[in-house]
Amino acid sequence: MYLPRGFMAGATASGIKPSGKPDLGLVSFLEPAAWAFTATTNLAAAPCVLRGRNLYAAADRLRGLVVNSGNANCATGEQGVRDDLRLAELAADFLKVDPGSVLTASTGVIGVPLPVDKVAQKIGGVELGATIDAFAEAIMTTDTRVKLSEQTLPGGARVVGVAKGSGMIHPNMATMLAYVFTDASIPAGELRERWPALVDRTFNQVTVDGDTSTNDMAAVFSSGLTEAEPAHFWEALEATARDLARQIAADGEGAEKLISVRVVGAFDEAEARRAARAVAGSSLWKAAVHGNDPNWGRILAALGYSGARFEPDRVEIRLQGTVIYKGGAVPFNGVALSQAMQAAEVEVDVDLGGGNSVAEAWGCDLTEEYVKINAEYTT
Amino acid sequence: MYLPRGFMAGATASGIKPSGKPDLGLVSFLEPAAWAFTATTNLAAAPCVLRGRNLYAAADRLRGLVVNSGNANCATGEQGVRDDLRLAELAADFLKVDPGSVLTASTGVIGVPLPVDKVAQKIGGVELGATIDAFAEAIMTTDTRVKLSEQTLPGGARVVGVAKGSGMIHPNMATMLAYVFTDASIPAGELRERWPALVDRTFNQVTVDGDTSTNDMAAVFSSGLTEAEPAHFWEALEATARDLARQIAADGEGAEKLISVRVVGAFDEAEARRAARAVAGSSLWKAAVHGNDPNWGRILAALGYSGARFEPDRVEIRLQGTVIYKGGAVPFNGVALSQAMQAAEVEVDVDLGGGNSVAEAWGCDLTEEYVKINAEYTT
Repeated sequence: MYLPRGFMAGATASGIKPSGKPDLGLVSFLEPAAWAFTATTNLAAAPCVLRGRNLYAAADRLRGLVVNSGNANCATGEQGVRDDLRLAELAADFLKVDPGSVLTASTGVIGVPLPVDKVAQKIGGVELGATIDAFAEAIMTTDTRVKLSEQTLPGGARVVGVAKGSGMIHPNMATMLAYVFTDASIPAGELRERWPALVDRTFNQVTVDGDTSTNDMAAVFSSGLTEAEPAHFWEALEATARDLARQIAADGEGAEKLISVRVVGAFDEAEARRAARAVAGSSLWKAAVHGNDPNWGRILAALGYSGARFEPDRVEIRLQGTVIYKGGAVPFNGVALSQAMQAAEVEVDVDLGGGNSVAEAWGCDLTEEYVKINAEYTT
Repeated sequence: MYLPRGFMAGATASGIKPSGKPDLGLVSFLEPAAWAFTATTNLAAAPCVLRGRNLYAAADRLRGLVVNSGNANCATGEQGVRDDLRLAELAADFLKVDPGSVLTASTGVIGVPLPVDKVAQKIGGVELGATIDAFAEAIMTTDTRVKLSEQTLPGGARVVGVAKGSGMIHPNMATMLAYVFTDASIPAGELRERWPALVDRTFNQVTVDGDTSTNDMAAVFSSGLTEAEPAHFWEALEATARDLARQIAADGEGAEKLISVRVVGAFDEAEARRAARAVAGSSLWKAAVHGNDPNWGRILAALGYSGARFEPDRVEIRLQGTVIYKGGAVPFNGVALSQAMQAAEVEVDVDLGGGNSVAEAWGCDLTEEYVKINAEYTT
């Protein structure tokens, strides 16, 4: 997938991943790009997240992005802070820009020092080009496929997004790295003002396992090389983020199905989001989806502990389009519905019957494979 | 296990469970018993929970308890409310007491009407005796073993607890039914005043899968047939509740190991509890425990999103007694520690290095078996 004007990307295998797979991705911003940034709320946040926050306060525009996917460089003490800075310096040298204009990110195992010398040896081998594909592959950890999304606006400006996800995925945020690039010229202030709420509606509505990672971030970069704020830019940006969020959920560790939940009728948007997330994240409902079991009691129970206000007798629940609960149990064909659940996407629609607020959330089924992947990760 | 003076219990198979296993348990309070009660915060709470709350407001003393473990009688509409009242009436008839003095509880599948006529046919077959064992067995659902605990106080008063747990177990509360009986004479007001905090430190610190059930309750009943408030009564009551909480966690669905987490050095007790629960409930850490993987990064990450305040460089983490993190990674023998994790109980000790508050929490490892059990429950 081609990047918008003003961006070039590349990748290499630096040897941080024992598998020898690509683990270092670089994006060069040919012009200083306006940017907006959100990152994990985890108190044990990694140096790259802390540095990103400082950078966000200090720099209106950036010149590049470097990601290593072999090591989270988290819980690595003062050395971790120095190694993260070194990563920025190495990328800045390569891109011939100031280190203070390069955003860093790391993902992978926690608590092991980042072998940044490997980056020093291999970064020269990165070949920058007009596509994002090699970068998308290089930032994967246990992801099974690359996550890309694009939108083209009237007038020709484009929005291109890339993400990685997989395990330790939960709101605010996950080991989720998501970057969106655009050549539309968006005022930096507006980008910064609108990005957090957009992230709340999209990336922060993805849950794979309830664990919020130490290293996540979502950022948008605007080179501004095409026309000023084209029509439908915000819709395109949100569509890109939403599409990436869905891809991340669908490729959750061990997942075989995407669970998409849409809640309407909540008293406010925060409650709508919470209700949708509770259903998408319920271990019991996730296991039921895995077994094609239309066990709506688990949906109702998840709504009940979500913190959203509702009256159970005003609630309607649809599963794959079929009404299965309407203020109480309603008859449905369990065999047919179980068959309908044998799909790549299982859709839950909830009307809380209260107010007018709406939200979506995305998760995945809970499988034996998830347990296998996570029972033996470092050993 | 013998009940304290003033209580008799029994059980039968009413046929609500398709397996034909015992599913109806009764406890008769020979004298009106002072009681204290907490129940699920789930908004989709079952009729028995709503009735229990009303009873708690209306009745200082109770005469009996009836539990059916074949059907949750939840999300069953007005019929469910009537069926729950009928369950109380049937038990009251059998015990020759007023229906308004009998607490009801149900656990099992959600959304299916309770076949209360089966109870009517079979309740006459219950034989009340001095032991709690048949009752303990009759309230089990996917539990693999009965959960009982007792303490004897100086002077001879006793505290006897019984619980069921297994899936859908998470704070505030779980499909957890827990009842503690004592013949110690405790003022009703004091019992009601102290019970909620005691439940917060014990039953509400158990997490199996993050799903809070619609039907849970924990109650204590005092017949008052022995001396007035003996020494150490509250310690004995808490020890009983704590022991049952541990048993519930250890027998979580699919669990092979108990995970016990002790947090010290928190700024307040609520944060200590939250931190301990986050570690005990982290899917990633639970999977790591299953694989005997001393992956402390997952412990640190869970602390980081728990909501408890701390400085990562002041934190110390011990696993099975071995220091594995002290303000940063410390060297340890991974092979030896992995072997030490091959135990029925895996202990995590965390010092947040902040204040003086302390809490415990209990969970279990996440296994392929959990997924199997929950992928096919109703179908």
